[in-house]
Amino acid sequence: MRLPQGFTATAVAAGIKPSGKLDLAMLVTDAPAAWAYVATRNRLTAPCVARNRVRYGTGEHIRAIVINAGNANCASGESAGFDNEEMATRTSNILGGTRPQEVLTASTGVIGVPLPMSKVHEGLGRLTGSLDEEVDRLAEAILTTDTNIKVVAANLRGGARIVGVAKGSGMIHPNMATMLAFITTDADVSQATLREIWPDIVDRTLNQVTVDGDTSPNDMAVLLSTQRIETPATEFIDGVEAVVTKLAEKIAADGEGASTLLRVAVSGARSEADARAAARAVAGSSLVKTAVHGRDPNWGRILSSIGQANVLWDPSKLEIVLQEVAVYRGTPLEFDREALSAAMEADAVKIAVDLAAGEAQARAWGCDLTEGYVRINAEYTT
Amino acid sequence: MRLPQGFTATAVAAGIKPSGKLDLAMLVTDAPAAWAYVATRNRLTAPCVARNRVRYGTGEHIRAIVINAGNANCASGESAGFDNEEMATRTSNILGGTRPQEVLTASTGVIGVPLPMSKVHEGLGRLTGSLDEEVDRLAEAILTTDTNIKVVAANLRGGARIVGVAKGSGMIHPNMATMLAFITTDADVSQATLREIWPDIVDRTLNQVTVDGDTSPNDMAVLLSTQRIETPATEFIDGVEAVVTKLAEKIAADGEGASTLLRVAVSGARSEADARAAARAVAGSSLVKTAVHGRDPNWGRILSSIGQANVLWDPSKLEIVLQEVAVYRGTPLEFDREALSAAMEADAVKIAVDLAAGEAQARAWGCDLTEGYVRINAEYTT
Repeated sequence: MRLPQGFTATAVAAGIKPSGKLDLAMLVTDAPAAWAYVATRNRLTAPCVARNRVRYGTGEHIRAIVINAGNANCASGESAGFDNEEMATRTSNILGGTRPQEVLTASTGVIGVPLPMSKVHEGLGRLTGSLDEEVDRLAEAILTTDTNIKVVAANLRGGARIVGVAKGSGMIHPNMATMLAFITTDADVSQATLREIWPDIVDRTLNQVTVDGDTSPNDMAVLLSTQRIETPATEFIDGVEAVVTKLAEKIAADGEGASTLLRVAVSGARSEADARAAARAVAGSSLVKTAVHGRDPNWGRILSSIGQANVLWDPSKLEIVLQEVAVYRGTPLEFDREALSAAMEADAVKIAVDLAAGEAQARAWGCDLTEGYVRINAEYTT
Repeated sequence: MRLPQGFTATAVAAGIKPSGKLDLAMLVTDAPAAWAYVATRNRLTAPCVARNRVRYGTGEHIRAIVINAGNANCASGESAGFDNEEMATRTSNILGGTRPQEVLTASTGVIGVPLPMSKVHEGLGRLTGSLDEEVDRLAEAILTTDTNIKVVAANLRGGARIVGVAKGSGMIHPNMATMLAFITTDADVSQATLREIWPDIVDRTLNQVTVDGDTSPNDMAVLLSTQRIETPATEFIDGVEAVVTKLAEKIAADGEGASTLLRVAVSGARSEADARAAARAVAGSSLVKTAVHGRDPNWGRILSSIGQANVLWDPSKLEIVLQEVAVYRGTPLEFDREALSAAMEADAVKIAVDLAAGEAQARAWGCDLTEGYVRINAEYTT
């Protein structure tokens, strides 16, 4: 997929991943770009997350993001911070005309193991020669146990484009489900606007994805603009949300061991925060996730998972619709269990809940909990 | 196991469980008993939980608890409330000299299906004839997918006794992991004291057990005293906590599909609430649970799960000890991975974390996440 105007990218296999696959990538802009940033709420933060926060605070534009997979460069001792800084410095040197402060860093992979800096240096040296307008090599390089690349694009009226790339859940040398997302655009939007809209969009999309309830010290989502093409603000905002929503679905569908995407839509909440909490509670419930895996139209688990969310609601009015079949409306409804179970034999299962308490709504995305998840995360040979 | 003075119990197979096993039980006192009560925080509450809360509010003593397994009598429509009230009324009639208000109710099992009241009535009719001082039939009757009965007793100085019985996680016709606990004693302790100490003890013990993060609309823990034998308050409080701690461990060890008990001890927290949250976060993390299942000394997952808990801490001072082996102290420590993995081949795995931020401590109990959990909860035939 071609990047928006002003962006180039590339990746090499630096030998950080034991598999020998692409693992070191760079996203570069031809002039300082406006950006917005949301990172993990985990109290354990990798040096890249912490450093990017400092960069964010200065308000300066950026020129590049350097990303490695195969090693989270986190909790590996005192060297982690220096190594992270070094990645930025080397990248700025190689690119030329770029200061280290204009380079963001991102790492994903095993934690507690020092980043092999000689491999990083060697890989960085080979990177710039192959920069081009395609995002696919970068999309592949940032993967860990993901089974596919995640790229979504949108064309806006006026000619601007949005291209988003993300990685989701899981690692081969397993530690956690780091989520990385980089959304590029050439729409002419101010940095102030980017920074105003980005946290809300992430809260409605990427932060509503749950694979196993575990967050990573390395999660981050960056929105960058080269500000080339005039675009109405609402057009842009809707476009970003649409792109990131599709990325969120791709991440959930490719959750570790997942065989089924779980789409949860909650309506009738008193507030959007309530709606989000309820949707996340359903998508994140181990009992709901195993029921989806077993094609079991078990609305009792859905009802109970909502009960766990700290949202106000009245079970006597609440409605649950599973794969378009109403199964509960204040009281259990008659339905054809066999037919509904058969309808759940799908790539995606939709659960819609009306809390009947207000007007707010939200969505969340998850996946079924399978024997595969347990295998991926338990079968680690020391 | 013999009950404390003044208690009798029994159970029958009323046909509520499809298996035909014991499923209807009664715990009776020979005079009004003092009691304390803690119930689920799930916003969805079964009629039994709601009715007991009302009884609690009156401050009146009680004479009996009637319990059924195989059906949660919850979210099954308007009849649920009436049926629950009917269970209490019938029980009081059968016992004689007892008002319905002196009878508590408890139900566990599938939700959304009306309680088969004709079976309940028939079973209640057979119950009183077999009342005796043994708790074991009751302990068996309250089980769902539990694989063993859970009874713990303690003898206090002065001759008073504490006998606790509980059930844990999982159901055959699956819905959720209802926890029921009934703690009986003949220690002469006032109802005011019982009610003062009980919520704290439950918060330190039963509420620190996590099997899959899902709560039930039917969870309850009742502490009852026939007040016969003079006992120092501290002796009694320590005894209750010891009994309930052992019950908590038994519940965690018998979690659905579990092969390993997970004991988490957090120290050095700024507050007990922080310590509890950190301990629960470790015990509840899917990644930690699968690592324990895989005998993987993966301290990175432990560190990250603590990072997810909203507790203040400094990773540069934090210490993690896994099966008595220090693996992280502000920085990764050298250790023999193979030996530690072998040491994790045990019925119980202990994770100790020192947050190095204060003096408070707490424990939590969980279990490994196995293919068995997924099977139990996914293999449901509609």
